[in-house]
Amino acid sequence: MAEAKYDVLGIGNAIFDVLVQTDERFLSLHGMTKGGMMLIDEARAESIYRDMGPAVEMSGGSAANTIVGIANLGARAAYVGKVKDDQIGRLYTHDIRAAQVAFETKPASGGPATGCSYILVTPDGERTMNTYLGAAQELTPDDIDAAQVAASAFVYLEGYLWDPDSAKQAFVKASTIAHASGRQVALTLSDAFCVDRYRDEFLDLMRKGTVDLIFANEAELHSLYQTADFDTALKQLRRDIRLGVVTRSEKGCVVASNDGVIAVPAFPVDTIVDTTGAGDLFAAGFLFGLVRGAGFEAAGRLGALAAAEIIQHIGARPQVSLRELAEKGGLPV
Amino acid sequence: MAEAKYDVLGIGNAIFDVLVQTDERFLSLHGMTKGGMMLIDEARAESIYRDMGPAVEMSGGSAANTIVGIANLGARAAYVGKVKDDQIGRLYTHDIRAAQVAFETKPASGGPATGCSYILVTPDGERTMNTYLGAAQELTPDDIDAAQVAASAFVYLEGYLWDPDSAKQAFVKASTIAHASGRQVALTLSDAFCVDRYRDEFLDLMRKGTVDLIFANEAELHSLYQTADFDTALKQLRRDIRLGVVTRSEKGCVVASNDGVIAVPAFPVDTIVDTTGAGDLFAAGFLFGLVRGAGFEAAGRLGALAAAEIIQHIGARPQVSLRELAEKGGLPV
Repeated sequence: MAEAKYDVLGIGNAIFDVLVQTDERFLSLHGMTKGGMMLIDEARAESIYRDMGPAVEMSGGSAANTIVGIANLGARAAYVGKVKDDQIGRLYTHDIRAAQVAFETKPASGGPATGCSYILVTPDGERTMNTYLGAAQELTPDDIDAAQVAASAFVYLEGYLWDPDSAKQAFVKASTIAHASGRQVALTLSDAFCVDRYRDEFLDLMRKGTVDLIFANEAELHSLYQTADFDTALKQLRRDIRLGVVTRSEKGCVVASNDGVIAVPAFPVDTIVDTTGAGDLFAAGFLFGLVRGAGFEAAGRLGALAAAEIIQHIGARPQVSLRELAEKGGLPV
Repeated sequence: MAEAKYDVLGIGNAIFDVLVQTDERFLSLHGMTKGGMMLIDEARAESIYRDMGPAVEMSGGSAANTIVGIANLGARAAYVGKVKDDQIGRLYTHDIRAAQVAFETKPASGGPATGCSYILVTPDGERTMNTYLGAAQELTPDDIDAAQVAASAFVYLEGYLWDPDSAKQAFVKASTIAHASGRQVALTLSDAFCVDRYRDEFLDLMRKGTVDLIFANEAELHSLYQTADFDTALKQLRRDIRLGVVTRSEKGCVVASNDGVIAVPAFPVDTIVDTTGAGDLFAAGFLFGLVRGAGFEAAGRLGALAAAEIIQHIGARPQVSLRELAEKGGLPV
């Protein structure tokens, strides 16, 4: 197996985040389920946007956030995702490249605009997302560069990508090439409602070995196995996947592997401002730990550290050097 | 004189802010003068942007920031500024309207893109701006609605607007209508380099009574009168204008009027994150105080309060209710 050129290659929906601080009333007025991600069409996007307060904008997208976090920690990272060649798409491209991520996906020249997510942040720090996929759903298997996948130690996929059909094919193509090259494939389940839509398909991906490593939060795990009992769900997860990492917010995370189950605590945080990207950045820290050959415990602590940084400010991209934070915390970089 | 429909009408360059945290090295590499605002063309915009780190975007523009602050404090505010009918222009329009500001300027359907400013924030919190005016410079006298100006108690103009020729004419038209309707006209000098370019014209505007009230910071005041001595400059300011308000960063502000000169302290701030918008928000608080009929001291304290909020986070738009802050601080709202 050739030495990898990239430590992690992420594939996901390239989404521009439009963040606004709001209250619970706005969510219920618009029939939104707090904490979830809802796919919306252009008409609904316009109606939500019209009622929203003033916003702050920045590049986002679940896997992209993870990949930017990995690059910020100092690993070699690449990203595949579709934007349109419009103003927002150009901002997006700038941001991810400026974060030292290799990003060469050809932007769409026609069709829908660059995707965006209207993210409503309530005073408790919870985020509720309304995503217009736009150009992101135009990702096809042709956007997967076989040589790049083969040259990446890990391929990281987001469950959100399982929504558009052609993206599913891109996803499976990437996994097939990765495995043929002796690489590993990780998947984040992304969202409990997303799991609810694709439960059987996700279980199939796990059981057939299309993915080797799963990231899930508690709600996603419960949705996957349709049980309210954590231990029951975890037992089933261990049967279905070689490595499963379950994040539990302030309770930290649980890493379930052939070696057994270990729990890693969360990093204490003074004030939670905005949980957008918490899971994405946890995955960044954890994957970075694996890349560096750290044990599961150190990887879990790196994940906790990155997640703690991201929830203390608005937006899902780091505002400081995670590498320096990790060094100060005595974690392997 | 009819009762005013708007308390303050702001006219300025409508600019989308692209903010990035950087270091002194970046500024010197690109030949930028720290703390200033430089006008750049598209080629230079591209070259700076290519080298910049990942950014956060939000609506800005000096007078627009002031007007949003005034609306946030609870007064009736309107804004005139030119964007293009493009993605960024639509974000801009949304944000200012969502801030409860009346904004009806017709967007340009062709020509240059919506203006933007690449704002580099150094670790000391200082901001250095590189502004591509784009569509903002297409503002013409036709964009000034005489009825709206006549119905606004204050017209607030930014010195930056003095750069494009047609905007100058719009500026003078607004002042003429305002005075004919018994309204008052305020001007912020905007930037020491801007004052250096237009010193004689600005002095002319003051001495001829085109403007009634001037906002300036120390650097702008010194540039205006080409003296390093504060008291000398202040003495000249008092001769040239009925009401002059000079901000002095952590030293607070000085209000010079026919009643004499009073000094108002700044609000203590723990950590300065980003000074972008400090002057804009000071003007918001001060004008709001005048609108409410508060004395100069209370107006100065309102200005200091609004400026203190804005420098504790990234970006020049308030992140909390200034009205609530003012109420808690025992200031008139």
